Amino acid sequence: MRAELSPSLRWKVICAYDGTSFAGWQSQVGGRSIQDVIEARLSEVAGGLVRIHGSGRTDAGVHALAQVFHFDLPWKHAPERLRAALRVNLPAGLQLKSVRPVPATFHARFSATGKRYSYRIYLGDADPFLRPFVWSIERPTAPRIDAMIAAAERLRGRHDFAAFSANNGAANQDTVRTLRRLEIRKKGRHLTIIAEADGFLYKMVRSLVGALVSVGWGKLTAAQLSQFLASGVRTAAVETAPPQGLFLEKVFYQGGATGTAPVQDE
Amino acid sequence: MRAELSPSLRWKVICAYDGTSFAGWQSQVGGRSIQDVIEARLSEVAGGLVRIHGSGRTDAGVHALAQVFHFDLPWKHAPERLRAALRVNLPAGLQLKSVRPVPATFHARFSATGKRYSYRIYLGDADPFLRPFVWSIERPTAPRIDAMIAAAERLRGRHDFAAFSANNGAANQDTVRTLRRLEIRKKGRHLTIIAEADGFLYKMVRSLVGALVSVGWGKLTAAQLSQFLASGVRTAAVETAPPQGLFLEKVFYQGGATGTAPVQDE
Repeated sequence: MRAELSPSLRWKVICAYDGTSFAGWQSQVGGRSIQDVIEARLSEVAGGLVRIHGSGRTDAGVHALAQVFHFDLPWKHAPERLRAALRVNLPAGLQLKSVRPVPATFHARFSATGKRYSYRIYLGDADPFLRPFVWSIERPTAPRIDAMIAAAERLRGRHDFAAFSANNGAANQDTVRTLRRLEIRKKGRHLTIIAEADGFLYKMVRSLVGALVSVGWGKLTAAQLSQFLASGVRTAAVETAPPQGLFLEKVFYQGGATGTAPVQDE
Repeated sequence: MRAELSPSLRWKVICAYDGTSFAGWQSQVGGRSIQDVIEARLSEVAGGLVRIHGSGRTDAGVHALAQVFHFDLPWKHAPERLRAALRVNLPAGLQLKSVRPVPATFHARFSATGKRYSYRIYLGDADPFLRPFVWSIERPTAPRIDAMIAAAERLRGRHDFAAFSANNGAANQDTVRTLRRLEIRKKGRHLTIIAEADGFLYKMVRSLVGALVSVGWGKLTAAQLSQFLASGVRTAAVETAPPQGLFLEKVFYQGGATGTAPVQDE
């Protein structure tokens, strides 16, 4: 099936945003969410209300290098012209990186096979240009990176991650996920944690980061993280890292395609 | 003279700020200038109004990596404790990098022997994280860097730069300056212009950048820039580059000291 023949053409958009400028991804009263801003512009272009469907929500303050959403709109011109039209009057904190037609079977959320996040920590007094994009931690001693790496090893793989999420009272939710990557990289004062999974629970990355940082400063042990994981219960010992260090880096789709390439026909 | 013996101790502060967050350097009705924010905090610490004196003003949107100011305050504790006290409740867009005692003869503005600015241009659609810090120029063709470099050569040295400033009606102002450096660097899509002089006129860096960029795209020639310089008159052909690409990088003081080291006793 060629997408161009669909009566209602489906579009996949990859966008980047500075989370500092918005009230999170999801539509809000007041209209200052990323979804609100995009839908407002899209509805102007379409001449009527058009809803967008994101790969998932991001909280206020969380950034995206390549968030993905889709919407349906009949459009007879080149995709580049649609992107040009949608870009008009968008706030500077939001960028539409690509706008491409996809088959009607594509769904930004349900077709996703995984996601990758990065979390950025600065060990010291971050300068004003870095502060909105890191968790800035000023402590007289350095964290024990080897301990953090050992703890991350226990968290990788297929587990019930209920202890590392904010459940929001959804008791019947499936909280088993496969954490394919959980890497810790240090370069000078910059500490980056990369997390990749088939999916993430609410506040899961920030909970994993909070726990790993506690291990780094000896407030928790790797063994305790294993116990939390096995318990399936969130405890106050697991801190949630602040939102501004978190970046949605990539959404994966079937066909080996990443967030930066269009999905193949299904 | 040891600074510690001064009846009124003079302090030199080096600060960095994201110009996006403030209404410029200079005190404003409404109090959202950098000077206002610092003076408000300083006056709390001092228990009474204390004025600060900057090396010069920066316009709204212009950033600083190392702006310098001084103030007078008797203080019996360690300089680091003064810095710690001043940092409390400062907005995230402003950072006090160092707070050091200086001789009473030091003046942030009148003692300065020069300044260095950088101006950052992005050739393309800058992502949301870069946009507040560059002049983002989207054009189908690339600028002619060799032409820009040749034009910069004509601007370097001791000249009357009246044609490259916004005069503000100060007719009797001395507009002769020595432009010690004017360099153009290109790395991929990033174009950086470095300007260093014994002093700068109002909007001089942004006017030089605007003119050089016009040369890059063949709208002006190097010979025309020489003519403008000789005329001493500002023309509409010289565009002013937008503020957000401009960074105050360093203020130089006597004794070879830079903005990042304390001045020597005089």
